[in-house]
Amino acid sequence: MGYLQENRGGLEKNMVYIAILGYGTVGSGVLEVIRKNCPGIAVRAGEKIEVKKILDIRDFPESPDKDLLTKNADEVFEDSEISIIVETIGGSRIAYEFTKRALKMGKHVVTSNKEIVAAYGPELLELAAQNGVSYLFEASVGGGIPIIRPLSGCLAANEINAITGILNGTTNYILTQMKREGKDFSEALKEAQQKGYAEADPTADIEGHDACRKIAILSSIAYNEFIDYRQIHTEGISSISLADMQYAEAMDSTVKLIGLSVKTGDKIFARVSPAIVSKKNPISNVDDVFNAIVVKGNAVGETMFYGRGAGKLPTASAVAADVIDIVKHRGVCRSHTWTVGPGDNMIDHRDFECRYFIRLKTGGSHEAESAVEDIFKRVAWVRPAVPFENEIGFVTGVYTERQLEKLLKEAEASEGIEKTLSIIRLLDDGQ
Amino acid sequence: MGYLQENRGGLEKNMVYIAILGYGTVGSGVLEVIRKNCPGIAVRAGEKIEVKKILDIRDFPESPDKDLLTKNADEVFEDSEISIIVETIGGSRIAYEFTKRALKMGKHVVTSNKEIVAAYGPELLELAAQNGVSYLFEASVGGGIPIIRPLSGCLAANEINAITGILNGTTNYILTQMKREGKDFSEALKEAQQKGYAEADPTADIEGHDACRKIAILSSIAYNEFIDYRQIHTEGISSISLADMQYAEAMDSTVKLIGLSVKTGDKIFARVSPAIVSKKNPISNVDDVFNAIVVKGNAVGETMFYGRGAGKLPTASAVAADVIDIVKHRGVCRSHTWTVGPGDNMIDHRDFECRYFIRLKTGGSHEAESAVEDIFKRVAWVRPAVPFENEIGFVTGVYTERQLEKLLKEAEASEGIEKTLSIIRLLDDGQ
Repeated sequence: MGYLQENRGGLEKNMVYIAILGYGTVGSGVLEVIRKNCPGIAVRAGEKIEVKKILDIRDFPESPDKDLLTKNADEVFEDSEISIIVETIGGSRIAYEFTKRALKMGKHVVTSNKEIVAAYGPELLELAAQNGVSYLFEASVGGGIPIIRPLSGCLAANEINAITGILNGTTNYILTQMKREGKDFSEALKEAQQKGYAEADPTADIEGHDACRKIAILSSIAYNEFIDYRQIHTEGISSISLADMQYAEAMDSTVKLIGLSVKTGDKIFARVSPAIVSKKNPISNVDDVFNAIVVKGNAVGETMFYGRGAGKLPTASAVAADVIDIVKHRGVCRSHTWTVGPGDNMIDHRDFECRYFIRLKTGGSHEAESAVEDIFKRVAWVRPAVPFENEIGFVTGVYTERQLEKLLKEAEASEGIEKTLSIIRLLDDGQ
Repeated sequence: MGYLQENRGGLEKNMVYIAILGYGTVGSGVLEVIRKNCPGIAVRAGEKIEVKKILDIRDFPESPDKDLLTKNADEVFEDSEISIIVETIGGSRIAYEFTKRALKMGKHVVTSNKEIVAAYGPELLELAAQNGVSYLFEASVGGGIPIIRPLSGCLAANEINAITGILNGTTNYILTQMKREGKDFSEALKEAQQKGYAEADPTADIEGHDACRKIAILSSIAYNEFIDYRQIHTEGISSISLADMQYAEAMDSTVKLIGLSVKTGDKIFARVSPAIVSKKNPISNVDDVFNAIVVKGNAVGETMFYGRGAGKLPTASAVAADVIDIVKHRGVCRSHTWTVGPGDNMIDHRDFECRYFIRLKTGGSHEAESAVEDIFKRVAWVRPAVPFENEIGFVTGVYTERQLEKLLKEAEASEGIEKTLSIIRLLDDGQ
């Protein structure tokens, strides 16, 4: 650790020096937060924290911080006074190499990079442990919302049974605009891009890949074993229509992109998909770019964590908290450990049971309704305030996806039914 | 520390022994949680944790745990193998003495006792620090909701500007029953008592004393200085009527008992009182016995923590998490420190500005309305769906309480106005 006890080369004593890799939105936010809240941070950390170097390959000739900026990685890694590295580069290639290099050199690493944590978490945590340093990533899920530490620490006396979350602000903003303003998906996406809430290439957000990495990280912490995000069935929101929203409204519910994981015995189920959420569920009221995570433990019951899931300062708040945590508990390795199991700990998504909302295109609705009742037995019809012509909507009983697929094939082959328009899962109580 | 490294008298090695003081609801819950979730707790704590003794002056002849029970305090305090004391006695007399005794003997203390923390926090934290042990109290606020640790750790990079909370489940249950079922206060209270949500003597809950201690504890942590609960203006909910609820509904709002604190420059304002909360505020949807705490930081923005604020297992979950935290970080003192200031850090509640909902009893409403508009200038009239005879309701502009008092006196002296029926503060955005 590079905690200095005396003056050296003009640097202050009792000062912790850190470096930031990547001077983008989050990286510059970390600098801003650490500077702005310097006195309070020093009180809580027990020592003053200062950013000594910022590594970025780009030029920032106008930056007031250009004295800190360097393009030379050696200047950062070889500086023995820098004991903590903040990795806010994003992406997984260079960030991965730099993280390994830092940990091997006995420097703590703090990151907001969910891609790296989800892909290389076990390896990097192991490397951190070997080198007696911490690898912390509170900012990788839920932006500024405290969730990683509450999950691993405050709820440590619980067996966690389930996690349900709105984990992506971009898609939640789009769905909120669709619901509130009646904009269709592509219009709402365009607006989100104009406002800076969605990237030029929005795939990672709208197809659920971002939420998938986040539920993988949360589940790995909650269940004490590594959940590989590549094994999580993931669907995005691009197929959600305004009609779906109106049916949801008729069910006193709303459509949300939900990251979900459930522990059943020794097995874990995880999924990212749109879901119909009852307005009685507090998560249904989480709108715009806000995120919320509901954790269900066997002692605490349900707890919810809510706040800004992204953005410069909220994310920087979480990164800086990890830095403070390391300084406050120097000498104690603060990392988690993730056991990598044999890889068969996941329940296949086709074997997981839930109820479904189904919309079918019909020739004439009476005939179709009879067919549906014959096939699905118990159905709850959903009738929007303004009915849609030539279609029917209903909620099924509880089925696995394999069972549903079979029943739907049967339905589609029935007289009066032309095709399936939508299948959206219901988020039931207890999930 | 009493961490055992080898077998002694049949006790296991690598085992941490704890004692529970008080075998009531929370105390027996702690035993239950630690036993039930033993394997997971051992993984997260790094060591097995076992309850070695339970101190209670009562007899429990039927208890399956009677081997652990003792009435002799010396048996607990003199046992060098017991390194952590869980204080769940409640009240402030014996619990205070026992806490001091434990800390002086170098034993860590974990408590759910908000009375002691609010009254003797600075002294006990100081005593813990002197003896190199921890005094932790996550369970003292918000039951099972992780809030103390997130506030002191996860949001450590923020200057906290405000805390707003529904901190008492009993009153929230009563208010929810009044709103939802149209029961009046005394009927709803009676039902809460029957269901075990309210005590036979419900004063501490319904008069806001419980919420007052909790906002004092949260504020002390958030602002890094001790906030004395005796300096917090506190009002309960016993004067809230069904009519008030109907006016709130007409404002698309709801009445909640709100614990509030705000930092303005170097000064702190704190208050417990009923407040009218807009349904746009996520805290307004927190119903029944649930609690929620909204923390506003200068980097993170608003974050909300939600869950069961009381109850056997949720509270035990928080107590056990503190125990695990101590075991995990042995050797590191985990306590907070609370600076006791000169005592003039609080803003007088009569000097704090907000808007108010006012109900007045009138002779004839037209005359009264003119008088109100003359006196208050800008008012927003509130008209419930079913109007009440001979009264008017309105929302004022922003005033201090001193200003309001003067204006109300003027109004009461006006022709057509008989008396003031209700004054309820509005919880405005940013509080």
